[in-house]
Amino acid sequence: MFGLINKITAKPDSRDRLIQLMLQGSGDMPGCLSYIVAADAKDPDTIWVTEVWDSPESHKASLEFPEVKQAIGSAMPLIAGFESVATTTPRGGTGL
Amino acid sequence: MFGLINKITAKPDSRDRLIQLMLQGSGDMPGCLSYIVAADAKDPDTIWVTEVWDSPESHKASLEFPEVKQAIGSAMPLIAGFESVATTTPRGGTGL
Repeated sequence: MFGLINKITAKPDSRDRLIQLMLQGSGDMPGCLSYIVAADAKDPDTIWVTEVWDSPESHKASLEFPEVKQAIGSAMPLIAGFESVATTTPRGGTGL
Repeated sequence: MFGLINKITAKPDSRDRLIQLMLQGSGDMPGCLSYIVAADAKDPDTIWVTEVWDSPESHKASLEFPEVKQAIGSAMPLIAGFESVATTTPRGGTGL
């Protein structure tokens, strides 16, 4: 399995809209085992996205889907920062 | 929902055993929507644990379960560091 932990900073007062866009573009993608969009509990502009894919190739392919491209296009103007916190190899757990 | 992103540093050559212990203690816990244990892809001692619970109370209650207490007890000697990276409010996604 292939995992990502990303930290996204929304522009002020844009987090809710950005989360909405990210969830819109993330419905049943082939090979996606987990894709969770979460608001940081303390910082009003921070979003955490944690992903698990069956392979890096599935993740890479998902970026070519029209609905994902459209969501990314709509989201970009609302993003102030992006940090790739970790690339991982998930070993197991609940919700995969 | 209530989410956690934690970074655990294993003592040298202990990560695989630590991951095994963490997965053992994490089977079907009430209110646990997602609990993923992943090895960092670059650092050989780093483990990422991303969790989603239906409430903070469910998470807190899980720490009192015998199998969880036992897993934590066995895991402690293998842990060199623990960092609470984020507390979150998950908003949705796949695998919840």
